[in-house]
Amino acid sequence: MFNKILIANRGEIALRVIRAAHELGVKAVAVYSEADRLAPHVLAADEAYLIGPAPSAQSYLKADVLIDVAKRCGAQAIHPGYGFLSERAHFIQAVRDAGLVFIGPSPDAVTAMGDKTAARARMIDAGVPVVPGTKEALADAAEARRVAGEIGYPVLLKAAAGGGGKGMRIVRGEDEIEKAFESAGNEAQSAFGDRSVYIEKFLEGPRHIEIQLLADRHGTTLHLGERECSIQRRHQKLIEEAPSAVLTPDERAAMGAMAVAAARAVNYEGAGTVECLYQNGEFFFLEMNTRIQVEHPVTELVTGIDLVQWQIRIAAGEKLPFAQDDITFTGHAIECRITSEDPANNFMPSTGRIQNLLIPSGPGVRWDGGITPGVEVGLFYDPMLAKLIVHAPTRIEAVDRMKRALAELRVEGVDTSVPFHLRVMDEPEFREGRLDIKYLERHEDLMTAQPDEDTIRAAALAAALLEEERRTHRAMPRAGTAAAAAPVSGWRQRGWRNR
Amino acid sequence: MFNKILIANRGEIALRVIRAAHELGVKAVAVYSEADRLAPHVLAADEAYLIGPAPSAQSYLKADVLIDVAKRCGAQAIHPGYGFLSERAHFIQAVRDAGLVFIGPSPDAVTAMGDKTAARARMIDAGVPVVPGTKEALADAAEARRVAGEIGYPVLLKAAAGGGGKGMRIVRGEDEIEKAFESAGNEAQSAFGDRSVYIEKFLEGPRHIEIQLLADRHGTTLHLGERECSIQRRHQKLIEEAPSAVLTPDERAAMGAMAVAAARAVNYEGAGTVECLYQNGEFFFLEMNTRIQVEHPVTELVTGIDLVQWQIRIAAGEKLPFAQDDITFTGHAIECRITSEDPANNFMPSTGRIQNLLIPSGPGVRWDGGITPGVEVGLFYDPMLAKLIVHAPTRIEAVDRMKRALAELRVEGVDTSVPFHLRVMDEPEFREGRLDIKYLERHEDLMTAQPDEDTIRAAALAAALLEEERRTHRAMPRAGTAAAAAPVSGWRQRGWRNR
Repeated sequence: MFNKILIANRGEIALRVIRAAHELGVKAVAVYSEADRLAPHVLAADEAYLIGPAPSAQSYLKADVLIDVAKRCGAQAIHPGYGFLSERAHFIQAVRDAGLVFIGPSPDAVTAMGDKTAARARMIDAGVPVVPGTKEALADAAEARRVAGEIGYPVLLKAAAGGGGKGMRIVRGEDEIEKAFESAGNEAQSAFGDRSVYIEKFLEGPRHIEIQLLADRHGTTLHLGERECSIQRRHQKLIEEAPSAVLTPDERAAMGAMAVAAARAVNYEGAGTVECLYQNGEFFFLEMNTRIQVEHPVTELVTGIDLVQWQIRIAAGEKLPFAQDDITFTGHAIECRITSEDPANNFMPSTGRIQNLLIPSGPGVRWDGGITPGVEVGLFYDPMLAKLIVHAPTRIEAVDRMKRALAELRVEGVDTSVPFHLRVMDEPEFREGRLDIKYLERHEDLMTAQPDEDTIRAAALAAALLEEERRTHRAMPRAGTAAAAAPVSGWRQRGWRNR
Repeated sequence: MFNKILIANRGEIALRVIRAAHELGVKAVAVYSEADRLAPHVLAADEAYLIGPAPSAQSYLKADVLIDVAKRCGAQAIHPGYGFLSERAHFIQAVRDAGLVFIGPSPDAVTAMGDKTAARARMIDAGVPVVPGTKEALADAAEARRVAGEIGYPVLLKAAAGGGGKGMRIVRGEDEIEKAFESAGNEAQSAFGDRSVYIEKFLEGPRHIEIQLLADRHGTTLHLGERECSIQRRHQKLIEEAPSAVLTPDERAAMGAMAVAAARAVNYEGAGTVECLYQNGEFFFLEMNTRIQVEHPVTELVTGIDLVQWQIRIAAGEKLPFAQDDITFTGHAIECRITSEDPANNFMPSTGRIQNLLIPSGPGVRWDGGITPGVEVGLFYDPMLAKLIVHAPTRIEAVDRMKRALAELRVEGVDTSVPFHLRVMDEPEFREGRLDIKYLERHEDLMTAQPDEDTIRAAALAAALLEEERRTHRAMPRAGTAAAAAPVSGWRQRGWRNR
């Protein structure tokens, strides 16, 4: 095992990796930008080094500086977290060239999966299902009819040169295909000066389901089941869970085998995720993320396997000590991303200093955070402040536990996504597990709803009362000084919690 | 299910019950003394009522006031937590007489187990093993020899009238028994004026192992495995874990069956615990706690079963939906009691206002707390501030996770037991699971050791630096204002964490 590793990241994932390192008895070195010098990951690390000004290009993306710090402080390996340099093959190669271990896959595996078109072709070769269709222009309406017949209706015609819905047609049956081909071509011609059109299978309302993988360098590649991440806003995941409410054990096994095949096709090592679209028992490869993902904790909670510890152990050469059949799934886990965005205002980023922070705790609650009171939330970095994750025996118990935990959470100083999450936990389709990637299109009200006036007023009142009490009372009243026979008095406090 | 319940308690257990109620969709009513009006359990409840001055006798022990509040606020049931009125049969009867539900066992069951001598006799009748011996005075040395021969050496001779070790003899073989009987009797005579001596089996270094039970009112009584609670100081548990490092599956099944028999013998309902001494595969009934226990979370973590929710559900008439074989055990859980006591000063209670609180979080960490910054810790109540609980795949991983979590915890304003717990996690016998109730007698240094000077100085420096930064910097430096090419600078921060 390593003696010391450097974490080339910030925020909650840097803290997550530091915790894993410490639990393994490994020293953790943090790096930080000028904006982050009081950040929790800096204070939690064994050593911390300033690497430059706030903009990432001048600090967290400085490959040469990071490698230089690692060498000078005696770190033997670098963990990249997610984002930043985590999927840059040139960085991985530079780390290796410096005689250090990169905690993650090889540059070749990252390159192979990084080019989405090449990855798709490679996956087809490996027998991994992709969304059926052509990626080249159709010659004529007859070819469109032939290919559509092969892949099955409904299909989607798309302008090869375009985007934004121009030259796009959903075709639901053979009788519509010729007319749609002509009109799509005409629209593409007038929009892009190019009438080329291609075709792919149209998925009405697919789910985003992804498979977690772990692969060591001794030939073992295992899957750890799926995560359902269909609650997305503009391709940004907001809520994730494990297991999916719809997958059967057979489907899980099939998707798992597919993901293992995808990983083996690129000699994958470490933790990785194969993202798929799923609809009515069919699934299609989208892409592979060659790093740890934000939503990894839901898998950790249902499998009991610490993915970040295993990233480090695999990079240190350890062999996975369990087989596929040893991996079992217990209960249900849900994660809500707590971001500094105002859901009532189109998820506009919110900035400010964290004034007060009350973290939910108690049974089945996990908080993976990157903030403390006093920390300034600016615009330099991703607005995700923390992840709130719950685990319970069943899905509906997990939903109700999440409600309870969200209600306990208080973040003062910035607006957060908490009111949005609270509304989702009460929404009937969500509670029943009827999710797909268009869920938020159907439920725009979950984003725009304002908290009711009473709640705001009651919460403000309660907070002011508490603050006043804390300021003025140096000591609490002692027995004897207070009226001995005080009558029973009560106060109702609707709205004190985040409801 | 109830609409509303009242929690007749304070501190972490009141908050724990409120969380369970909220997760079940049940409104929670708090009561509080004048000293507790800003306590977390008050702020987390849906309603809260002042019931009197700080001394428990004038507030939390006022059975009539509690029942009056419950009736006036429309609560249908009362949860007693632990301590206070939780094992007072007269209170349970009064709750029932008021037409309310007591969340716990019947007054008869509590009475039967409350009288320890009567309970012992009842358990013998039910075939439950107790520590062998007589509770009556031995007639002469011949009887001592005969009884000792029956129960097996070593045995303990004890003065019937005494205590404090006077008139006490450990006898390791038949050749010593007559001489020991005479000298014990002589010592008892001179110390207490009564030479009566009785005999019981001597356990060299037993473990404290207890079995968790759940019983519904439809005839189902199940055990949820054991907790090992051998790390005690003057009969006060400090660290608990599940499972025990020594119990075999057969022993677990045997102890579980014994505990179920004990519960059935008193028609037990709800959650309860049978406490035993265990040595070399033998176990002996000590007593039954007819309430939820402080250390219940370790069982929740390894079984996935929410004991407090089930207390409420059973009291509402629900049937346990699982059978004994459905209860399985996953991983290992450890709990450290975080008390406001100074371990370096003979565990003297420490009082003050909580100035700052940084709660550990991240993977596998649970915090069941009863404090927030601003709360005054006085001498009115139990010094337990919170429980820190971890869960990991194996015992040693749980120990290392606990070290990590303890190192993250910061409680400023009072001394705490944290330094003691950190030393235990590093102590070789503890790490190997070699525990018994005399563990702390062998390891007094774990209590008296002082943190080293360097650690104290480094921690103070880091804390002062952080505080200064927070006070003086209204805004963090922005890109452009800071030197663009700042050289890499580092600071080592040994001792910032609680090491």
